[in-house]
Amino acid sequence: MQKVEPKTLPGFMELLPQEQIKFNDIIQRIKASFEKFGFLPLDTPIIESADVLLAKAGGETEKQVYNFNKGENELCLRFDLTVPLAKFVAANFNQLTFPFKRYQIGKVFRGERPQKGRFREFYQCDIDVIGNENLSIVNDAEMPSIIYQTFKSLNIGDFVINFSNRKLLKGLFSSLELEEKSADILRTIDKLEKIGEEKVFLILIEDFKLSKKQVKTILDFVKISGTTDEKLEKIKQMPVKNQIYLDGVNEIFETVKYLRSFNVPDDNFEINLTITRGLDYYTGTVYETFLKDYRSIGSVCSGGRYDNLAEFYTDKKLPGVGISIGFTRLFYILNENEILKTESNSISKVIILPMTENIAYCLSLATFFRNNEINTEVFLEQAKFKNKLSYANKLQIPYAVIVGEDEIKQNYLTLKNMTTGEQFKLSKEEVLKKLTKN
Amino acid sequence: MQKVEPKTLPGFMELLPQEQIKFNDIIQRIKASFEKFGFLPLDTPIIESADVLLAKAGGETEKQVYNFNKGENELCLRFDLTVPLAKFVAANFNQLTFPFKRYQIGKVFRGERPQKGRFREFYQCDIDVIGNENLSIVNDAEMPSIIYQTFKSLNIGDFVINFSNRKLLKGLFSSLELEEKSADILRTIDKLEKIGEEKVFLILIEDFKLSKKQVKTILDFVKISGTTDEKLEKIKQMPVKNQIYLDGVNEIFETVKYLRSFNVPDDNFEINLTITRGLDYYTGTVYETFLKDYRSIGSVCSGGRYDNLAEFYTDKKLPGVGISIGFTRLFYILNENEILKTESNSISKVIILPMTENIAYCLSLATFFRNNEINTEVFLEQAKFKNKLSYANKLQIPYAVIVGEDEIKQNYLTLKNMTTGEQFKLSKEEVLKKLTKN
Repeated sequence: MQKVEPKTLPGFMELLPQEQIKFNDIIQRIKASFEKFGFLPLDTPIIESADVLLAKAGGETEKQVYNFNKGENELCLRFDLTVPLAKFVAANFNQLTFPFKRYQIGKVFRGERPQKGRFREFYQCDIDVIGNENLSIVNDAEMPSIIYQTFKSLNIGDFVINFSNRKLLKGLFSSLELEEKSADILRTIDKLEKIGEEKVFLILIEDFKLSKKQVKTILDFVKISGTTDEKLEKIKQMPVKNQIYLDGVNEIFETVKYLRSFNVPDDNFEINLTITRGLDYYTGTVYETFLKDYRSIGSVCSGGRYDNLAEFYTDKKLPGVGISIGFTRLFYILNENEILKTESNSISKVIILPMTENIAYCLSLATFFRNNEINTEVFLEQAKFKNKLSYANKLQIPYAVIVGEDEIKQNYLTLKNMTTGEQFKLSKEEVLKKLTKN
Repeated sequence: MQKVEPKTLPGFMELLPQEQIKFNDIIQRIKASFEKFGFLPLDTPIIESADVLLAKAGGETEKQVYNFNKGENELCLRFDLTVPLAKFVAANFNQLTFPFKRYQIGKVFRGERPQKGRFREFYQCDIDVIGNENLSIVNDAEMPSIIYQTFKSLNIGDFVINFSNRKLLKGLFSSLELEEKSADILRTIDKLEKIGEEKVFLILIEDFKLSKKQVKTILDFVKISGTTDEKLEKIKQMPVKNQIYLDGVNEIFETVKYLRSFNVPDDNFEINLTITRGLDYYTGTVYETFLKDYRSIGSVCSGGRYDNLAEFYTDKKLPGVGISIGFTRLFYILNENEILKTESNSISKVIILPMTENIAYCLSLATFFRNNEINTEVFLEQAKFKNKLSYANKLQIPYAVIVGEDEIKQNYLTLKNMTTGEQFKLSKEEVLKKLTKN
């Protein structure tokens, strides 16, 4: 028979079981952390109608979308979890309770050019809070506090949540009479860390025709330095007095105040006025999160405040604030750098190795362990003892129970610690106790 | 602004949060049950290369597949989890440990005509064991024993796992010199429960030109009745003596013997020789699972033994046995019939309702609860007390902690049981104790 090569597409992550165990362990911790803050689960379809999903898209995003026809329908695969959320909230407005706090963990699809560490199918882990008409600024502090708790629970080293408030730059641009160029300027400043100050300077002057003085004012502003409180003070002292700027000042003060109320240490957050987020729908606070040891990989968790989540679907005013972890990429980097510490690399806590024809005895024993919440497998194949042990070793199962005729006759079990090699003669209750403890 | 209707496509399940909580709760129990038997997690891509995924497809399946082009690639969405497993095992043969036991829980896609209770995007929960060259018959009993434990843990009423062994009918057909028509006959018998004996009789005689005597022999055989042991005895006593039949007899005896060793009660399994499974790749044991109170919806969990999992990708002989829960449909039926009992309908165990400007106090309290593993939210918006309570009620949060100036000054908390309406003055440690217990 002609064989087909069993290949997986480039840009699609497919892990071996030992890695998948780690992946799931971390996803589980993220989920638990989101639920600890009372966020509700949501699971929107992967396929949506193209007119719904692309209602507001355009430019780069639209080019990357997987879209296709099935029958008469133009369909596409979701490229993020925010647009489906907007659709969901608009469609189910009357059945939801506001503020609506939801998390969603799922795959999204973008046909980017594949390159090392970039994926076309990847998990996003999103949380958003959506208000009906209003949404308190305290939520702008709760978001990073959730990320703080979540990342701490992942045990992946030092990280810092950077944030700014878009109203500050908007107010500054207004005072410089640059409102019309603000999208271009924001997008350029967003690249500051990547391309450097000199290039940003050139682009703003040559491409967007800003004056040197304007550029200097802007760059001096976004480079404001010092402790968090010093930065706040400098922001407050700026000679910009329009309402949008004053709102921004007020909001960033409140955000810092509540971040501290949420017990987020000053070491783990930082005002960074160069953060603008390219996407134009953010209207207030914006976030990016960096791993201190892997700053160069860019933000691993980003988001912000938007005034109007679902304006393409409904007249209802739905302000929100949300944040998203690009998980597949994060996992890839953590795994590559071997900085993932999981509690266990195996699913089974114990494997029963029958050395007898009396499989029934072993199966009953397995049922006994399982009924006591111990993940247990039985080696059911004919094989040499050496090969059975090798199976257990390869799967990194911490304990083996060896059951031979002697054990059955004399009513004991031989428990082998697969890490140390030690063996013990124990009753099944004693084995259970040992497995439960460790 | 022109609005787009925020619609979800027909045939795609999208649940409200209270339902999604139930959905996730059951998925979590299925996952825990699979892991209790030591199955390893796998997460293959949703998008695969069309030539890989359709290597063996054809007929009905291929028509239902979502396929499309992106650049030069012909792609499609997975329509089950078995073909991706075959690809994965063939591609990673040297890195896997056999027998390879994996579970996968994920969405698959089939463009069926949408109808009530049928979905185009649905979850499958699969377990399979793959051997290298050989795989013990004990695995044919382990599969239904896992399903037995899993369904019991779901608490969804009575169910019975039906099974047969294809070698029996294959042997019988051989003795009747009907080998060449066996695929047609199997497909017809598979419809017995749906279309009735009379129609099956007619189809076999008129369409497939069997003699009346042949049809009678076959129908008498598949209708063998009695207790499990009586059925086994009748199967053994049949005057069919070819090797394939004798192998089938031996295997079905062993399957029953080990099912009992796995402590599966006789009430929960049943030999049913009309079960053939339409798909032609099964070669031995085949399973279907029925909810006793909802027999008419058909099998909710099916599978079987196959000799050669990955023959389209590799020369390696990889026998396996597996079973799959069509979960979205199952959930739909359970939910429609209101027979889902979940431990809790809310994510949060407690909500803190600030009656003071001192939000910081409430946030610290929330952190205290969360650090003690209690899912906690804080109502952060400005609202009347009545509306805050209504929010908690709608989300079915079992406890509310009310924090006003008095509480802060006198250092106590007011705990409200949202079900009974009772209120208690307690210290925060006492509240924690109450929340942990319940």
